[in-house]
Amino acid sequence: MQEYSEPIIRLIDELRRLPGIGQKSAQRIAFHLMRRDAEETRKLVQAITDVKERIVSCSVCNNLTDVDPCRYCASPARDHSLICVVEEPANLVAIERTREYKGLYHILHGALSPIRGVGPEDLKIKSLLERLRTAEVKEIILATNPNTEGEATATYLARLLKPLGLRVSRIGMGLPVGSDLDFADEVTMHRALANRREL
Amino acid sequence: MQEYSEPIIRLIDELRRLPGIGQKSAQRIAFHLMRRDAEETRKLVQAITDVKERIVSCSVCNNLTDVDPCRYCASPARDHSLICVVEEPANLVAIERTREYKGLYHILHGALSPIRGVGPEDLKIKSLLERLRTAEVKEIILATNPNTEGEATATYLARLLKPLGLRVSRIGMGLPVGSDLDFADEVTMHRALANRREL
Repeated sequence: MQEYSEPIIRLIDELRRLPGIGQKSAQRIAFHLMRRDAEETRKLVQAITDVKERIVSCSVCNNLTDVDPCRYCASPARDHSLICVVEEPANLVAIERTREYKGLYHILHGALSPIRGVGPEDLKIKSLLERLRTAEVKEIILATNPNTEGEATATYLARLLKPLGLRVSRIGMGLPVGSDLDFADEVTMHRALANRREL
Repeated sequence: MQEYSEPIIRLIDELRRLPGIGQKSAQRIAFHLMRRDAEETRKLVQAITDVKERIVSCSVCNNLTDVDPCRYCASPARDHSLICVVEEPANLVAIERTREYKGLYHILHGALSPIRGVGPEDLKIKSLLERLRTAEVKEIILATNPNTEGEATATYLARLLKPLGLRVSRIGMGLPVGSDLDFADEVTMHRALANRREL
């Protein structure tokens, strides 16, 4: 006899596709959702549907946003001569949390990875070059993750950007090597920003 | 400046309400959902909506099911003289996996816990007594979790059921004490069923 009803099996299956969710977590979340009142679950469904419908990619920096251009790109209070390049939108948040950085961002949506078949054309590099052509940018801070792929991406971008006469810097290696930018605490992140070195 | 757009904040918030999901996991899942194509996300939303719409509580045993009575209660192949009492629907699955047990189930939807304010009236005990009045039940196996709350629930139920002239047994303590029934492997669970002792 099938252990679960078909709708339950399907929900557990779908939940297991989420990052960091295994069979046991999926099962636990599924039963939690079934126990919870309908209104609370409706809110979750609505929240998921909303991000899919309302969140777009910023046409300038590729940040995920509900207004285009995003709040950062549209803000006159930010320093438009400074662009910080990160791999993912979540990385931007790690930097914002320091409350130190007042420039703009550029989200690559990934990092170079020959092993996983991610080349320069898979990243938002072309739109970065486009920005440099039209805007008055003086410095690019490369804040890709301090791991192999992030380093490779930073090196690649440095070679590409230096000839354009810009200041190109890399965030300081105050961050533990091999880690993930998302998990950096504010102080480490702050030091990394302050210790950025020109490439 | 707000780090995330409002729909993203709301989604992260909703995801954090799920069991075992903290801020970082919620953030990771939210960005994963935004990156994923719309069709895949639609499937997840559909799966959540479906369980809420199609899954009901079995009117006999309180199992979560898409047919009422559930497959177990409705099956003539199961031994209707034997009822195994568990705390949660997921516990039923741990027992089914042994492929040894052929009786019926009764799901309490919780365990007695004075600390958390869960008393007998909060569990599906009344409907268990109801079943005993109308059906020909010979034995009740108390398979509540082998922790303090599960033990207290088993003791309470044993005192309640013994006077009715039934055989009342408790699953064998082959299960490591203090653990959770969901995480038992098939062999341990099998031994626990075989070693059940009469109360």
